[in-house]
Amino acid sequence: MSSNLPVNAARIAEDIDALARLTEPGRPWTRRVFSPLFLEGRAYIEARMRAAGLETRIDAAGNLIGCRVAGGEARAVLMLGSHSDTVPDGGRFDGIAGVVAALEVARSLAERGVALAHDLEVVDFLAEEVSPFGVSCIGSRGMTAQMPETWLTRRNESGALGDALVSVGGDPAVVLRLSPPKIAAFLELHIEQGPVLERQGRDIGLVTGIVGITRFEILVEGRPDHAGTTPMDARADALVAASDLVLKIRDEALRLSRKPSHFAATVGEFVMAPNAANVVPGRVRLLVDARAERRPDMEAFATWLDQAAKNVATAHGAAISPPARVSDSEPIACDPHLFAVLENAAKSAGMTTLPLVSGAGHDAAWIARVAPAAMIFVPSRDGRSHAPDEWTDNDAIARGAAVLFEAVLALDAEPEMTKT
Amino acid sequence: MSSNLPVNAARIAEDIDALARLTEPGRPWTRRVFSPLFLEGRAYIEARMRAAGLETRIDAAGNLIGCRVAGGEARAVLMLGSHSDTVPDGGRFDGIAGVVAALEVARSLAERGVALAHDLEVVDFLAEEVSPFGVSCIGSRGMTAQMPETWLTRRNESGALGDALVSVGGDPAVVLRLSPPKIAAFLELHIEQGPVLERQGRDIGLVTGIVGITRFEILVEGRPDHAGTTPMDARADALVAASDLVLKIRDEALRLSRKPSHFAATVGEFVMAPNAANVVPGRVRLLVDARAERRPDMEAFATWLDQAAKNVATAHGAAISPPARVSDSEPIACDPHLFAVLENAAKSAGMTTLPLVSGAGHDAAWIARVAPAAMIFVPSRDGRSHAPDEWTDNDAIARGAAVLFEAVLALDAEPEMTKT
Repeated sequence: MSSNLPVNAARIAEDIDALARLTEPGRPWTRRVFSPLFLEGRAYIEARMRAAGLETRIDAAGNLIGCRVAGGEARAVLMLGSHSDTVPDGGRFDGIAGVVAALEVARSLAERGVALAHDLEVVDFLAEEVSPFGVSCIGSRGMTAQMPETWLTRRNESGALGDALVSVGGDPAVVLRLSPPKIAAFLELHIEQGPVLERQGRDIGLVTGIVGITRFEILVEGRPDHAGTTPMDARADALVAASDLVLKIRDEALRLSRKPSHFAATVGEFVMAPNAANVVPGRVRLLVDARAERRPDMEAFATWLDQAAKNVATAHGAAISPPARVSDSEPIACDPHLFAVLENAAKSAGMTTLPLVSGAGHDAAWIARVAPAAMIFVPSRDGRSHAPDEWTDNDAIARGAAVLFEAVLALDAEPEMTKT
Repeated sequence: MSSNLPVNAARIAEDIDALARLTEPGRPWTRRVFSPLFLEGRAYIEARMRAAGLETRIDAAGNLIGCRVAGGEARAVLMLGSHSDTVPDGGRFDGIAGVVAALEVARSLAERGVALAHDLEVVDFLAEEVSPFGVSCIGSRGMTAQMPETWLTRRNESGALGDALVSVGGDPAVVLRLSPPKIAAFLELHIEQGPVLERQGRDIGLVTGIVGITRFEILVEGRPDHAGTTPMDARADALVAASDLVLKIRDEALRLSRKPSHFAATVGEFVMAPNAANVVPGRVRLLVDARAERRPDMEAFATWLDQAAKNVATAHGAAISPPARVSDSEPIACDPHLFAVLENAAKSAGMTTLPLVSGAGHDAAWIARVAPAAMIFVPSRDGRSHAPDEWTDNDAIARGAAVLFEAVLALDAEPEMTKT
């Protein structure tokens, strides 16, 4: 099937494979933002952008942008892209499939000598995944003037986020004063990261909306007593209290997930101190990642979580901080017109489609707040992602790239688009 | 009261204070074995040993020994000592009180011109606390030919235990071939690390026995899925499974602790991977520290733990390794004759005493396997230890040192002792 597509599947495979080799040794697939490997990946992508005739730059928010300049009057741009950073241990396709598909659209346009009325920008957004600074979508939030001021001074053991931004070519002095660029349409291809397309045998997921994501930080303080001499009934064990809270969060998330709208909650970070064999645990820090298609579900969960933390503290003689929202995004709907353009492009090419809600956050969610944006998904084998066995067939990515290609041509030709 | 003692309380306070200053900045009281601070502490102790007229050496097991040579025929030694390393965040008195008390006994003997029939050795045992290599009592086990062969090749991020032993002056080529030294009697003073002496208003705890300590390592393997897109009912969350196991271990330990003999179990180490906000936890490593006065209680707990791990694995779709014993020591009884000598020394000086079981492990437990050994405890404020607010009044340590002083004189004069 891929031989009939307006894009070259072999070139997509070559790029995906080249980037997959840039992983921490023995730890597929790990190319964490701000790491030397991340910069190697970006150097590869930039070289491929230039080979495709794109003019490259890094914007103040640290995004790598390749621009196919249309010439003539300045118009709002058509923008395609995703991200090249990964979570630890997973990301052979998560993000990079969308960057490579966008790059392939630009290459195919060049190969066919297509002249567009709009500038076309291919973007590798900075730090879509949760960065070592505890925050995500740094590039897409920065580009669209949605980065909180406080982020630049967030610190980890290697320094401040502002300095890390400089290290990838961004500009912390400018990023908080950016105006959002004029974007006529933003399209992002991404792997589904869930099992639905594969189970239903569909080629393309047409994303109707993206869940809101709220992350809560919780500190559990017990009393670090001697593990041998402190009677079992006289302890304030922070690990025991935190474990109880983990189980209660799982039960509540399970209950909310049985409603028709999407909900999930995960304790993804959990660090204990002093973490010594013969000391009763004194302190645990938890980070809860909650995702809801409907904002009222998230608010109900937040209210429940406040009370659950109080109850667990009382039950175990621990002190638990009120859960603090360290990040919070509202659910968003994809642009209905772009949804229709993508659906038409897929169906015209004979592909099967399915409307889906995205349980994962994406750069598109941030762009959608300032410009028309939409997404397509391609199938994930067994629904696995953020894991070493994450896999998507190359032909599936090529089919998605073909949909992007046709959608770009259609959007460029729309009368209302040429006016923007 | 301390002015009537045969030891000098002010000198004890001076040493305790000097060593308390050797802590990680802003992290009282932390002087971890093998660290530069630990070596600074040892240099201080060695200088004080020499000032007290002791001949100093480091043995093959890395113990710092100060010897008061009696002259004349070689006899089994009278040995006093404890340890100068600390757990993270706690150890202003834990260990060092016993080293300083032993040093003060030697100083007082010298000051009074007492000639003993036996050599007297003051020992700072290496790594009584759990070391960065996951094992404890390295020095007392090494000195008494009880160190497992495999320990020398244990590794952490800085290298092998054998190399660390060299760094403190030990000799890994010799330590496994040592014969236990001829010890006529070993006495150790230690803080109680529990609340009993303080609550009952007693000066001196006379230790009847020391619990056995068994440490179990458990690996929980889940599946590291995407935290947003993996349905709540299709997860194998390693943190949820491990949290369930933590609560079950606490409940079982609470049940066993209500029996008349001492029992405690603590999950003191707990590390999760990948520990990223948006990834379902894939793996948790737990270390369970269990302590029993009676060996059958420990065996019953081990059998229960095996089954509990299987049940939790099944309930959460995780794989849990059979709990592996990474260390295991039998409970021991203190020498009844030395117990009587210590009791008599305390009562003759008008001090109040209480027989106690030690819930903590001690170097004395390892010496007791090859020679007569006994311990005394001095009160801990609020029973706190292994914590920044660990505290024992200096007069209480001085009273304990006085008991050691009188016991040394009594033992040296015993007819049966002079024959050994």
